[in-house]
Amino acid sequence: MEFMTGVKKPDTLELEELYKDGMEGKTVRVNGAVHTIRDMGEVAFVILRKRDGLLQCVYEEGTAGFDLKDLKEAATVEAEGILEKEERAPGGIEIRLTGIKILSLPTAPMPLPIAKWKLNTSLEAKLNMRSVSLRNIRERAKFKLQEGIVRGFRDFLYEQGFTEIHTPKIGAKSAEGGSNLFKLDYFHRPAVLQQSPQLYKQMMVGVFDRVFETGPVFRAEKHNTKRHLNEYTSLDFEMGYIDGFEDIMAMETGFLQYTMKLLETEYAKELKILGITLPKTDKIPAVRFDRAKELVAEKYDRKIRNPFDLEPEEETLIGRYFQEEYGADFVFVTHYPSKKRPFYAMDDPEDSRYTMSFDLLYHGLEITTGGQRIHDYQMLTEKIAARGMTEEGLEQYLDTFRYGMPPHGGLGIGLERLTMKLVGEDNVRETTLYPRDLSRLEP
Amino acid sequence: MEFMTGVKKPDTLELEELYKDGMEGKTVRVNGAVHTIRDMGEVAFVILRKRDGLLQCVYEEGTAGFDLKDLKEAATVEAEGILEKEERAPGGIEIRLTGIKILSLPTAPMPLPIAKWKLNTSLEAKLNMRSVSLRNIRERAKFKLQEGIVRGFRDFLYEQGFTEIHTPKIGAKSAEGGSNLFKLDYFHRPAVLQQSPQLYKQMMVGVFDRVFETGPVFRAEKHNTKRHLNEYTSLDFEMGYIDGFEDIMAMETGFLQYTMKLLETEYAKELKILGITLPKTDKIPAVRFDRAKELVAEKYDRKIRNPFDLEPEEETLIGRYFQEEYGADFVFVTHYPSKKRPFYAMDDPEDSRYTMSFDLLYHGLEITTGGQRIHDYQMLTEKIAARGMTEEGLEQYLDTFRYGMPPHGGLGIGLERLTMKLVGEDNVRETTLYPRDLSRLEP
Repeated sequence: MEFMTGVKKPDTLELEELYKDGMEGKTVRVNGAVHTIRDMGEVAFVILRKRDGLLQCVYEEGTAGFDLKDLKEAATVEAEGILEKEERAPGGIEIRLTGIKILSLPTAPMPLPIAKWKLNTSLEAKLNMRSVSLRNIRERAKFKLQEGIVRGFRDFLYEQGFTEIHTPKIGAKSAEGGSNLFKLDYFHRPAVLQQSPQLYKQMMVGVFDRVFETGPVFRAEKHNTKRHLNEYTSLDFEMGYIDGFEDIMAMETGFLQYTMKLLETEYAKELKILGITLPKTDKIPAVRFDRAKELVAEKYDRKIRNPFDLEPEEETLIGRYFQEEYGADFVFVTHYPSKKRPFYAMDDPEDSRYTMSFDLLYHGLEITTGGQRIHDYQMLTEKIAARGMTEEGLEQYLDTFRYGMPPHGGLGIGLERLTMKLVGEDNVRETTLYPRDLSRLEP
Repeated sequence: MEFMTGVKKPDTLELEELYKDGMEGKTVRVNGAVHTIRDMGEVAFVILRKRDGLLQCVYEEGTAGFDLKDLKEAATVEAEGILEKEERAPGGIEIRLTGIKILSLPTAPMPLPIAKWKLNTSLEAKLNMRSVSLRNIRERAKFKLQEGIVRGFRDFLYEQGFTEIHTPKIGAKSAEGGSNLFKLDYFHRPAVLQQSPQLYKQMMVGVFDRVFETGPVFRAEKHNTKRHLNEYTSLDFEMGYIDGFEDIMAMETGFLQYTMKLLETEYAKELKILGITLPKTDKIPAVRFDRAKELVAEKYDRKIRNPFDLEPEEETLIGRYFQEEYGADFVFVTHYPSKKRPFYAMDDPEDSRYTMSFDLLYHGLEITTGGQRIHDYQMLTEKIAARGMTEEGLEQYLDTFRYGMPPHGGLGIGLERLTMKLVGEDNVRETTLYPRDLSRLEP
């Protein structure tokens, strides 16, 4: 009988092992994809792309043990050679090839110049060839940073006593209701795709106190802008026993601080590749919605057209204002108008036209919506009635409050938007692996 | 201007802080939900439910500073009192109450006896009141262990150089094709919900070498069994530069070993609550599909009806065989018949009726399907043609292979099934937060 006993160390080395002291002069084996070949006549540089970066291999006729003509860009190989120090090579090392085993060969020349430092290709072309365009080192680095953000979110929240949950994406009804729901047939019953895990995470606050989820959400909105997607990854948390919605903002600030430190230490390579300066998160200003509107109206000489609405240009100007006045990358805008928030939002006891809620703007773009929720059964059912909504389909949700719920609140963060602002892009599709929008449903 | 500077330490303490040395005799503040009240006359025990466990508070008339009648089970409170050692109390401590602040009160008596050690309630009733039934300590512990499994999966794979990805769940076409797809209308275009991230994670192997995703998948199967769900959480990975599909099984074994250790150290409390003995993962037997069928046919005196199919009872018996003969909790069954595997599966070069693939059985239940994939463009398009499939909608997927792909493979693990087996349940709905099946679409 054969037995599996765990991960076996392969006889090929990864970059961090090659970079170690004492490797000079040693014969090593590595694998990778041929990123580019620079043929200088008797010598050629074969650059391998590995998951951690690039590796320079040197081909010399006679000693390499194979014919350079057999090698192609985009081939995948297992190479053998002697490791030497070489300051001009990536990572300060190179491999003098003594042998090669070709694992696979492409059947067509590369359609994009992925080996160039900057891939000067249209977004459209990049998306049409995602699995090729992301082989570019800079394009790839964006998604590595995206990983770091999600990782920071989870690790920070584990530390803070949160429990991870997995809530269903198909349901009979959704959190906010309304028209922006994708509809589907569920064994001959009408169903929708969840636009948020809102109702589920609230229900779970009564069980775990603090919960989070990182997963897809679906919005059937007909927006065709640079910042909207019809499917995106939402970083959601919900916490009980709060004193007010400021606790939620404090928790988000803590997440951002934790994550920027994580990126600085674990993703330094990608930050360098993309030339990113991390945003400041030590103190994030918080300003009331109505006050923010006044501030930008005064400073930028704008009329306030609707005191209960925030236009995209106003968001941009709020971002600019706090950047100019406080050097702030982020700003919390608080006390959003009640009619702009869903039924479960806690109204301000001092002025019920406003809610105990907030958005977080990152350089003028909303990346988070959050706030305190109603935890009192009576108050909740009254608000549902006042809005002319039905309780149908909300039975289990409402029962949760009937059987006791602590004061609580939470938020949702758009992962692709946060990544986009971090890497300095201006279209959210740049930081979405396979965007779903009005025109894009494939691949 | 107000500024958010990060998480503030609340003035209430969590259990681990209360358990620390030197806390005896100190006045402390805690919050929680009233799990149960045992009124003994002049003294009453008020048990608070906190996210980490239960806490005994002692109410004495006169010193408590409030009237016990004002308190109800399922109320949420902030309590103050003096910490004392008490061997018979959970965690060996209790709080002698000196004051209480009621944060919220329920409006109806609890519909389920959640404070009982075992909640002897039907699955149906538990699911109909999920946000209440999970307040039972044992019910809750199952989902805490589920968190541990996902956490182990991610942390182990980060260590092994994998990158986390987020792939779309709405698409024009899906991995395996076929009839088990949920269909929806995507802005007047026909679309489906992905039954697996298969094609996406393969495409990303050419970019990151090793990728993983933890997310929902959707299967419109009309199965009504204890082990099927129409939506579940899939733990998926895919890795390049493999020598064979054994590398995938070795990686999964490594994940299981890492995760059991994580559960042992970080989730010891929940393991104890549920009385769980962790399965053995040091060496997992691997047996060929055809050989496994012979072994159980011989030992349990069964006829082999179809040599190319595995019946559920046969799976169960394979689990039993390896438990009896080798004391094994897990067994890899390898070389599944080609016609039972999707088009992208790599056929066995020695016998193309079989594939370089495997299932992992846990006590006789399939919890993983995996294997090596075809990485050669020619071989892939030929297999698609041989199966009478169309290349339509697969253009970007196929182009990935045209432009070079390393030998690779991967797997998908059903999270709820793995949790179910770990905690010793026999219905996967017991370990699914909000199951979706033929009858259940709400809440």
